[in-house]
Amino acid sequence: MNEIEYFLKSKEKALYKLNNALFEEKVDEDIKDILELINSSENYFTSSSCSGRITLIELPNLGDKKKAKFLGKWHRKVAYSEIQSSINLAKEGMIWLLAQSPILHISAKSNILADNMIKIAISSGFKNSGIKSISGNIVIEICSTERLDAPIGRDGNLFCNKKHLNFLVDVSNNIIERSNKKLIFFKKNLGKMLKN
Amino acid sequence: MNEIEYFLKSKEKALYKLNNALFEEKVDEDIKDILELINSSENYFTSSSCSGRITLIELPNLGDKKKAKFLGKWHRKVAYSEIQSSINLAKEGMIWLLAQSPILHISAKSNILADNMIKIAISSGFKNSGIKSISGNIVIEICSTERLDAPIGRDGNLFCNKKHLNFLVDVSNNIIERSNKKLIFFKKNLGKMLKN
Repeated sequence: MNEIEYFLKSKEKALYKLNNALFEEKVDEDIKDILELINSSENYFTSSSCSGRITLIELPNLGDKKKAKFLGKWHRKVAYSEIQSSINLAKEGMIWLLAQSPILHISAKSNILADNMIKIAISSGFKNSGIKSISGNIVIEICSTERLDAPIGRDGNLFCNKKHLNFLVDVSNNIIERSNKKLIFFKKNLGKMLKN
Repeated sequence: MNEIEYFLKSKEKALYKLNNALFEEKVDEDIKDILELINSSENYFTSSSCSGRITLIELPNLGDKKKAKFLGKWHRKVAYSEIQSSINLAKEGMIWLLAQSPILHISAKSNILADNMIKIAISSGFKNSGIKSISGNIVIEICSTERLDAPIGRDGNLFCNKKHLNFLVDVSNNIIERSNKKLIFFKKNLGKMLKN
């Protein structure tokens, strides 16, 4: 199988998986248009995506991400009370509040096409974008630098006072707002690039 | 200039800059051996590095990193009292405590050599490693996933109580410890790879 055949075969598989995910409503609403736009181009396809999220996790040990337990997960802005209720579910291990900006994995047909996509992403505010792999498929990761990774308690006990937790919720919501703006900007720039 | 000539010219420039940085004692002690090992290979050179660090910054607005002001910076574990004294310097904007694992930028002579380096890095625990650029120089970024990015106060006021700040300092120090272990492991694996 040559490189182009391999790309097309991989795209077919990725689109099959994406369609299943769409059917099961597992694709973030805010990012659907962008996925459609990218996959409609013959030069690219998407393999995974997240539109940005706020999560509350319980982590037995640092770096032990596989054992992380989700206490709450939101692909939108959250209310203080939602975070508070989710904290009540905590039992054992460190409690972390995370706010993550969007992340997209995109395969490109060639190095030059990969570079073009990265340039568009960086100019749309996704400054941390780069290439994850070049052997076999060329996989690009589109992502941004804004994030919050804050340990806030341990073994069911919250170490944060109300004022501080409110502040963390505000910053997290601000990250989601900025993420949404960047996605809109990216979609616009992407549309222009793919038209040319 | 062909690709190999361009690589050699870029390596010459990077080594000149590195030597200046070494002379000015601007290179982190924990990472010097690794830089020497990589630069002694004809296939790679390093362009920037950080052995991992804990920083306390003041940020006017989210994402406004260019305007960030360092209140404290440590390439080692810190004491609670050091963080506390640095917080006293805060005046305006959000106060963030950050703990970052090591980051290295390495240029490789070819795509295959870049992939080999990334494999060694990932197997040494630097799971977030990838390629930052493939046009012109092939630039690899070696980095890990552990990090702490915690907003802890605003406009000179700390929102954290003593117990919580102690916890954040513990987690930050744990990130530095893990970073140091990963660097030792990476050096060992790198030595083996470059010998073959």
